[in-house]
Amino acid sequence: MTPRDSDTLARGVPDLESRLHETHHETLRLWLRLLTCTLLIESNVRTRLRGQFKTTLPRFDLMAQLERNPRGLRMGELSRRLMVTGGNITGITDQLVAEGLVERQPIPEDRRAYAVCLTSKGKRQFDLMAQAHEQWIEEMLGALPAVERRRLHGLLGRLKSGLNERKSEPPPRSARKRVVERRLPREKHA
Amino acid sequence: MTPRDSDTLARGVPDLESRLHETHHETLRLWLRLLTCTLLIESNVRTRLRGQFKTTLPRFDLMAQLERNPRGLRMGELSRRLMVTGGNITGITDQLVAEGLVERQPIPEDRRAYAVCLTSKGKRQFDLMAQAHEQWIEEMLGALPAVERRRLHGLLGRLKSGLNERKSEPPPRSARKRVVERRLPREKHA
Repeated sequence: MTPRDSDTLARGVPDLESRLHETHHETLRLWLRLLTCTLLIESNVRTRLRGQFKTTLPRFDLMAQLERNPRGLRMGELSRRLMVTGGNITGITDQLVAEGLVERQPIPEDRRAYAVCLTSKGKRQFDLMAQAHEQWIEEMLGALPAVERRRLHGLLGRLKSGLNERKSEPPPRSARKRVVERRLPREKHA
Repeated sequence: MTPRDSDTLARGVPDLESRLHETHHETLRLWLRLLTCTLLIESNVRTRLRGQFKTTLPRFDLMAQLERNPRGLRMGELSRRLMVTGGNITGITDQLVAEGLVERQPIPEDRRAYAVCLTSKGKRQFDLMAQAHEQWIEEMLGALPAVERRRLHGLLGRLKSGLNERKSEPPPRSARKRVVERRLPREKHA
């Protein structure tokens, strides 16, 4: 398929891609299409979570991470996995605790920290939602034939690796220089 | 590339995909990977927009749509293109108007409506941001070779068409029946 074919196929509804000029580079086109697909699926999931389970996507995502980790997760681990900042997560956790869906448990090895876990009520509620959620995703992504889904999964895996490698690269030269020049007090007195 | 290879490549950093069990279907895997890639790129863009231009992603996206439509957009058109609900957009527009970056203009054919446009100050500021933004995207998506970017663009185009077709399908039978049965008052008195 040529890029022009896929453009024609994807046209029709005005969305984030509507802002593209003829002169825009293909990386920007790719990014806006990636974002558009994500938003289309996400907004469908949000609507259905609200309609069928009176809940929100951040609450569902948080419970999903806890279901995967029955021994619980510290707030920092949770926030890394959810890819959002801490503030939100504390608020959502408080809500879920108040509703008896989640609980905070002390960590024997670390007095100052605690782990967040699903309660059994939370587990039962999550299982119902997870089953419905997987079916919605299946309906939506089932629009692509299996062979294309596998290809897409592979390509996105390569994109993700590239993005993570970029993140873990050493900081640019100017920043590195500063680190080298700044001696720690401990070294001075060694 | 087999799915296993791409899993290995994409592993390492805990993220939304960490919640997957062995038993989860590949459509769910695909969705969580799509979402993870989007969030990785989006969070990078948010950080840089804040750091370099003291602005937010929703403000940038709104200005981008106006730049593409120099004659202005009505609020409804703007909200459809931005794929978000109206409330946010009104608030952001108010802010941008107060800063002299955007203005509301009357529409001659429709007294009750107005179009939102970039001011020339807004256009200048947007051009600077857009140039930097395109470079960031190029840096991030440049991690994939051009041939794979084109393939990804095509596959996402097919996914998007499938999602839009689903949206425009007729409502399920039960809903249709209700519409047919409910007579409009105008018809009664015709």
